[in-house]
Order: sequence, then C-alpha cells, then structure tokens
Amino acid sequence: MVIKCKAAVAWEVDKPLSIEEVEVAPPKAHEVRVKIVATGICGTDDHVLKGSIPNIDYPFIPGHEGAGIVESIGEGVTCVKPGMEGLALSHPHLHESQNLMPDKTSRFTCKGKAIHHFLWISTFSEYTVMPDSAIARIDDDAPLDKVCLFGCGFSTGYGAAINTAKVKPGSTCAIFGLGGVGLSVVVGCKSAGASRIIGIDINKDKFTKARELGATECINPQDFKKPIQEVLLEMTGHGVDYSFEVVGHTDTMVAALVSCHMGSGTCVLVGTPPLGSQLSFDPLLLFTGRTWKGCLIGGWKTKDSIPKLVSGYMEKKFNPDVLITHTLPFDKINEGFELLQSGKSIHTVLVF
Amino acid sequence: MVIKCKAAVAWEVDKPLSIEEVEVAPPKAHEVRVKIVATGICGTDDHVLKGSIPNIDYPFIPGHEGAGIVESIGEGVTCVKPGMEGLALSHPHLHESQNLMPDKTSRFTCKGKAIHHFLWISTFSEYTVMPDSAIARIDDDAPLDKVCLFGCGFSTGYGAAINTAKVKPGSTCAIFGLGGVGLSVVVGCKSAGASRIIGIDINKDKFTKARELGATECINPQDFKKPIQEVLLEMTGHGVDYSFEVVGHTDTMVAALVSCHMGSGTCVLVGTPPLGSQLSFDPLLLFTGRTWKGCLIGGWKTKDSIPKLVSGYMEKKFNPDVLITHTLPFDKINEGFELLQSGKSIHTVLVF
Repeated sequence: MVIKCKAAVAWEVDKPLSIEEVEVAPPKAHEVRVKIVATGICGTDDHVLKGSIPNIDYPFIPGHEGAGIVESIGEGVTCVKPGMEGLALSHPHLHESQNLMPDKTSRFTCKGKAIHHFLWISTFSEYTVMPDSAIARIDDDAPLDKVCLFGCGFSTGYGAAINTAKVKPGSTCAIFGLGGVGLSVVVGCKSAGASRIIGIDINKDKFTKARELGATECINPQDFKKPIQEVLLEMTGHGVDYSFEVVGHTDTMVAALVSCHMGSGTCVLVGTPPLGSQLSFDPLLLFTGRTWKGCLIGGWKTKDSIPKLVSGYMEKKFNPDVLITHTLPFDKINEGFELLQSGKSIHTVLVF
Repeated sequence: MVIKCKAAVAWEVDKPLSIEEVEVAPPKAHEVRVKIVATGICGTDDHVLKGSIPNIDYPFIPGHEGAGIVESIGEGVTCVKPGMEGLALSHPHLHESQNLMPDKTSRFTCKGKAIHHFLWISTFSEYTVMPDSAIARIDDDAPLDKVCLFGCGFSTGYGAAINTAKVKPGSTCAIFGLGGVGLSVVVGCKSAGASRIIGIDINKDKFTKARELGATECINPQDFKKPIQEVLLEMTGHGVDYSFEVVGHTDTMVAALVSCHMGSGTCVLVGTPPLGSQLSFDPLLLFTGRTWKGCLIGGWKTKDSIPKLVSGYMEKKFNPDVLITHTLPFDKINEGFELLQSGKSIHTVLVF
C-alpha cells in the first residue's frame, strides 16, 4: 500500500529544500519501509545540495542520519520486523550514485514525477524505503531523537579515532575542526584513553563544548603569527601521535600531516575534500615514517558495529547528546541548514 | 693506537671516490673500532655522492652497508668485544648530519686533514669507528660478504613488507622498481605469505631475479598504452592490497597509491624522494580508506631486530644471496658505482 507523507525534496542544485507531500511505494524484496522519527542534518547533506558531490540526479530526497520504526518489510527480509526500532545506515559506494534502489527504480513520487533517493536511505521523508542491508536494529528503548546521530556524524568521528587511527592510551591527539564530527573525534580520543587532546578551530565558540567532551587544550590558529603546525610541534616537542583533519581543506590536511611525529605519527583525513581538488606536499613527510590515511563513516566494517555503539551509549559509556544543539520540527529543515552554514549549531535534529 | 689503512674518500661532490691511505684514531668512550671485511654499495651512497642528500660536509668517507670484526672498544662498551663479528647499522636522523661522531669530532685523517664520517659508520674504510649504538653483534659464523646487505638494502626492503605494510597471508602485492631494495620487498612479501606478487620495472632484465625470489608476475609499463595503475586495477579487479614504491619518483608514488584498493589498500613509500620535491594528488584517494606511509630502513625498531634477521638467514628462512650480482675487490669501488648507475648490477659487495 502506498503511503502519502511529508518529505523535503531537492528539485534543483543550490536551492532551499521544498516540503512536499510524496507517495512512498511499499518495499520490494529485500527492502524495508521505515517511519522516520528523527533525522540529523549532516555536513554531507549541505555539500550535496550545493552540488559538490558528483553523479547526483535531481529531484531527490536527501538525509542520511535517520532513526525510526520499521513499518513494513519486503519478501526475504529477516534482520528486522515491523514495529522494531532501526537506524538507517549509509554506506557510500563512490562508483555508484545510490540515487535509486539497487533494482534501479525509485519508491518515491511527487506531483506525478519519480523522485530519486540519496545514499539508498533518504531520511528527510516521514516514510522511506531502503535495502535491508541499510537498516540496523537497535535497542528498543534507544531515544531515536538522540541516536539518529549514530547513523553518520558521531560514528564517523568516533570511529576515525577508534577504528582508523586506533588511538592508544596515554597518547597525544590533535583535532583540526571542532564541528559535530570533529567533536565526535574528541569523544573517541577520550574513550581510547588519550592523555592530551588538543582541539583546533578558528571559531572560539566551539571550545567550551570541546572541553566538556574531553579536549585538554583548545587553540585558535588566528592567535598565532606562526603556522599552526609549528605551534603544535612546540607544544609537544616532536609532534602529536595522532592528528585528525575534520575541515576538508587541503591546507589543513598538510598541516595535520606535518603536525604528527615524523617517525611514528598517524594523520587521519575525516573532512570531505573538495571535489577534484589537488593537494601538494613533500613526500619526505611520509618517507620518514608518518602514516596518512582516510576512512569513510568511521571505518566501521559491519552493519553490527553501529548497534553495538548504540548499546554503549545506552550503558552510558559515552554521551554525545551535548553535540545536539538544536532540535527542530521537520518543517523547519531550511532553518536547520542555515544554523549549520552560519556555524551556530553543532548538530540539528529534526523530529516528525 | 692509530691504524693506517685504505679508505675511499669523497673529496668533492659528484666526483669519483679516491682510494687513499687514512689514519683511524682509537675509539673513545662508547665507541667501537671495526675491521670492515665486506661492504655493499647502496643507492643511498650514490645519492649522497651526487649531492642529493642535504647537510653533508666534505671530505668524507661514505658507505653504510658493512660487516666486519671488532678490533677494539672504547670505555663503557658492553655490547661487543674485540674479535666478535658485527654489522654496522645506520640510523639516520634527518635533523642531524651524522657527519661527525656524537662528540662532534672525527676519527679519520688523511694527508693531514680531518675527514668527515657518514651516517656515523663510514664503511668504505678498512678500519672505521662508530658509536656502540651502531654496531650489532651477529652470529659468529655468518658470512660477512653476504650479510653485509643486512646493514641497509635487504633490511629496508624486507622490513617495508614485514614491519611497515604488515603484509598478510593470501594478499596481493605490487612492487614498483626491482632494484636491490625492490627485490628485497619481493622476498618480504613472499616470506609473509602473499599469494600474488606483481613486479613492475621498465628494465626487463630484472624479471628473472624477481621471479626467482617470489614474484608471480612481472610487467613493464612500456608494454602498455594505458597507465600502469589502470593495468593493475584490471589485473586485480579492485586494486592490490599492498603497493610499494621503490623508485623514488613522485609519479610512481601516486601510481602506487592509486593501484591499491580504495577502501583498504596500503601503499608504502620505500624509494628516497628527490630533495625538496612536491607531490600532487587528489586527497579523495586517501579519504575513501587507503593508507599511505613510509619507513626508514624497513621500520626495524631496535638494534636487536637485525641480528635476528641474520639468524633467520643462517637458518635458511630466506636467501637474499641472489641479490649480490657482483663481488669486487675494494679498490674497484668506482667500477661498482658504474655497475649500479648503468642498471647492470643488483648489488655489488666490495671485499678488503
């Protein structure tokens, strides 16, 4: 049975989203239809709407940080049942747009037109259809308006520290960029037992939250006459053990690499680089023994990893609630994007 | 007591070495004087003589792949005794030229002039003095004209596979550049249990040795119209698990990065990059999950590691003897460099 509901449609590149009534078809085999209860606004949604992610077909429904309740399931689905709580998981394939379901058709229509999906999950819709590989069952009592962040932002930052860098107890870490994902890196470094966590941002308003989450020092590059990598080398003697770039600029990517220890430091790229960008650096920086690496969505290898993270949250092992600075009704979605663009929000959660 | 002996002195940059009679002073505290029995010629000796390594003071005695017998020891030396076999180990500090002993003086004179050291070990001298941290005791029956390679070239390549990449059994590896170090990477990949080892070189003469040492396929980029990274992606489907750049060119460094699996591949830089070079690449290559790293001298962490490697050789766990294509009397040192420059030798060992 087709469901009619509210969704935010992107009709054209670089235009505000339109709240529309859409029709959502039932799930086909190995698909799940989910009633989204809460969905976060992530930087990647902003990037895609500005046209900086390739191979996106319009019109489409963005959103990829959603939590909800399974409404119905298609043939052959065994991982969830209707009524269960679930988290939508994006798993970007850079060679595939995921703008349609795996069978190359869409489940959304609006005003008689087929509407494309996004990352197979399109969480900016009250009801959405996704492949069963994209839904993870979570604890039944998990607060959906909080754990929706685990669908992308928090898991990306936390995983970059835990999975990709494999931060060791007692180590020194530097995080370039203290937005929602950067602050999640701070939480990951603290969970891993880092003894010194240096937050770096040109917006001092981020420092209070960063300290609250575990940063031991916060510095603003604009307060120094010398490059920030030199400041970090002086602060630490030989450079940090782990550096994280969560800005997405080529300049800070090189600064983060230089800032880590020449013989044993690891630099993790978390911020999305601009499309088609070129980065220049002296390869001697790697040759001496540094490691430079990246990760998609925190390097979690299986669909089971994220629900375990939600369980850890339920057991109060860490608390990223403080990352949610704004909770808005879904209709105010464009206001949420404005808060993100102006740097006034860390994370905005939309509730239906 | 000062010893008079033969040594190869570099008086000026980019000139052939001169065989001279030099005076070698006795070892001071925490120093060791060694009678060098055999010494390899390594690419780095060639680089330094051409002026491509910074902060080298002339005149100096190069050489850093030497094995010999301890002649005498200074005060406080406990790791070796006169008469023991030892391997000279360089441990480059990029911020220190190691052109003099740690106390900032030289043990060499020639024609009344002080002669500088190189990497603290200067093995192109029949007798040489080094800090005790630079001498590793090895099995007493180790053949010095073979294991001298363990002082740099073999350990660098073998260690890049074993320590830095941590090659896993069953994996696929690609090695760019099949000189002495590249072939040592092949040996390391085979020891680690890689099931597919692809050797790449523009000189087909290297392929026979590469296959003998464990390469399962050898390809010449000049045989293809498309870039070698595309050839490797087609050969493997999704790219190799581990790639090694052992050429030292920025182009092949990027090709090696692109050639490894976008979500999990590791690329190790082994070849020395040209001084002050800049490398340009799209950071998305890392962002998707690749790892890019380098290592100095194979990433061996302690002085004990290399003697263990020599013991492994004595137990016939691997046999890099085939890497030694020429053995020459020490006086023919310049002929050895010509063989290296023309690509006719893999490794030349000089014997006193």
